[in-house]
Amino acid sequence: MGTTVSAYAATSATEPLTETTITRRDVGPHDVAFDIHFAGICHSDIHTVKAEWGQPNYPVVPGHEIAGIVTEVGAEVTKYKVGDRVGVGCFVDSCRECDNCRAGLEQYCSTTGMVGTYNAVGRDGEPTQGGYSGAIVVDENYVLRIPDNMALDEAAPLLCAGITTYSPLRHWGAGPGKKVAVIGLGGLGHLAVKIAVAMGAEVTVLSQSLKKMEDGLRLGATDYRATSDRETFKDLKSTFDLILNTVSANLNLADYLGLLKVDGTLVELGMPEDAMSVPAGALVFGRRSLAGSLIGGIPETQEMLDFCAEHDVRPEIEVVTPDYINEAYERVLASDVRYRFVIDTASLRS
Amino acid sequence: MGTTVSAYAATSATEPLTETTITRRDVGPHDVAFDIHFAGICHSDIHTVKAEWGQPNYPVVPGHEIAGIVTEVGAEVTKYKVGDRVGVGCFVDSCRECDNCRAGLEQYCSTTGMVGTYNAVGRDGEPTQGGYSGAIVVDENYVLRIPDNMALDEAAPLLCAGITTYSPLRHWGAGPGKKVAVIGLGGLGHLAVKIAVAMGAEVTVLSQSLKKMEDGLRLGATDYRATSDRETFKDLKSTFDLILNTVSANLNLADYLGLLKVDGTLVELGMPEDAMSVPAGALVFGRRSLAGSLIGGIPETQEMLDFCAEHDVRPEIEVVTPDYINEAYERVLASDVRYRFVIDTASLRS
Repeated sequence: MGTTVSAYAATSATEPLTETTITRRDVGPHDVAFDIHFAGICHSDIHTVKAEWGQPNYPVVPGHEIAGIVTEVGAEVTKYKVGDRVGVGCFVDSCRECDNCRAGLEQYCSTTGMVGTYNAVGRDGEPTQGGYSGAIVVDENYVLRIPDNMALDEAAPLLCAGITTYSPLRHWGAGPGKKVAVIGLGGLGHLAVKIAVAMGAEVTVLSQSLKKMEDGLRLGATDYRATSDRETFKDLKSTFDLILNTVSANLNLADYLGLLKVDGTLVELGMPEDAMSVPAGALVFGRRSLAGSLIGGIPETQEMLDFCAEHDVRPEIEVVTPDYINEAYERVLASDVRYRFVIDTASLRS
Repeated sequence: MGTTVSAYAATSATEPLTETTITRRDVGPHDVAFDIHFAGICHSDIHTVKAEWGQPNYPVVPGHEIAGIVTEVGAEVTKYKVGDRVGVGCFVDSCRECDNCRAGLEQYCSTTGMVGTYNAVGRDGEPTQGGYSGAIVVDENYVLRIPDNMALDEAAPLLCAGITTYSPLRHWGAGPGKKVAVIGLGGLGHLAVKIAVAMGAEVTVLSQSLKKMEDGLRLGATDYRATSDRETFKDLKSTFDLILNTVSANLNLADYLGLLKVDGTLVELGMPEDAMSVPAGALVFGRRSLAGSLIGGIPETQEMLDFCAEHDVRPEIEVVTPDYINEAYERVLASDVRYRFVIDTASLRS
């Protein structure tokens, strides 16, 4: 049973991804089936297939920034109809019963944990497979509506990179009168800048070098500093209400925490391999916080899409064909992308 | 010029404190002079005189939990009059002009920094000397009013240990419906429990052993767990809204952060010598925060005194005479005090 679709899959940590076929489940009463039109390439995809976050269950079809058009809905689906423009982000299910799920914070589901869009096991006991494919079937409660005036290719990266930055900006109150710094101007960072600017905050980019300064200012940042320059940490001491760290490398956190005002918060969005080293004084002398944030829940992801549509926040993307995935991975690892690869999956649709 | 008073001072990192005399400045127009009746012994006193927080400027008269009765006020003093019951905490001045000072967060003064009650340099260029003495002269803006129904000896420890725990409990919203854990049942910890209970929170003590369990429950905690027992971290996973760490030792923070609910905060109040090791995942998977907090500002310290008076929150103290200070220090280091030594300074008053 089920439907066969084309997909790009990793079969080991070292082999390139290759085209294959996978089976999508039959459309259940609460399911939405949709043709995938675009899928963003997220660094997490690479970490997973390269087994850097533990041994995955190969074959793995990555992709959790998925946008497309509904082709079929289950008998009891009420939220979507055939032809609707929809998306799926990092998860396709969760327990739906714990306090976090009930609060719309499914990403923090405290019982089963969220069910990842790929490399997880669904309610049906089958492995989940992601967006580098021609179609997908997802419960309607985990499907997002893509606003009419938002292009599907530009919607895709919002479903992970967008919500990952939107959620902490909202949670920690980015807005008029607030000074926000964004560490790193990559896939996440460039969206963090755009979204924070759209929220009305004053935004500074903190990047290793000034190489992408022109971009940073074009995206709306009012200041752009090199973290390789020690003066940056003196000049900007006690300046920011909020700092988002979009970089997974281990930073000297004492330096960065020193850039926060009293009551400021530095939020980790990446997952550095080693534990972070934090001198207590950097927190105590200024009532500062070091926090973390993981994507966002379904209601907030919808809110983010609507916000981006309303404020014309669009990721800067390079659209590629599926046969370019492996080269794109190399370029992501070399930070050679401005700012997100998006796969046009046309060739994977039957 | 000035007035000579008796005091106990440290003259080196290794010698016992000895009785000596120091000079207090003449009472300026904005100054309040008061006889010190009681001074608490804080672990910070010991760190300072033993040069564990850098080389102090000997001789050092420690003591920043000071309570007494006003003997003289300057011509322009409006807040206090002779005979008033007053206190002084960890600082006796600050710049008064920066955003933090204006906001009543003098402890985070961003220009000169707060002027410590001892081992600092006052506005007059003279070293400040603390409460292990017969009298002190302090600007009225840095003097607290001790409520009528609060004993002076019980008021003393509130001025550091009390505000250090009250401020983060207030800031992070301890109250009805909130679950608070207190790591360590010592000078700070026992007050954290009492204050959190008075605020209406449900309080758990996390202590190395169950040795002080009876005390913890008597103080109002509803649960008391040994952190030497691995089961504690399984049983209490994702339980607390707020954890106050009153212990300066380096803890396995991944364990403790796992005890927080989504959006929970662990607040460091002590200053472990080594940088803390924090796995990013412990924060990211639960939007948790690791924060720090330093005593409290003058307005909040007054609020805390009034709150403790209203809710009958009293430190548990052992009153000693000045000639017992060195032995008291040994006992503090051995955690052999329930829960705060307070020096009766009668013999130091002329």
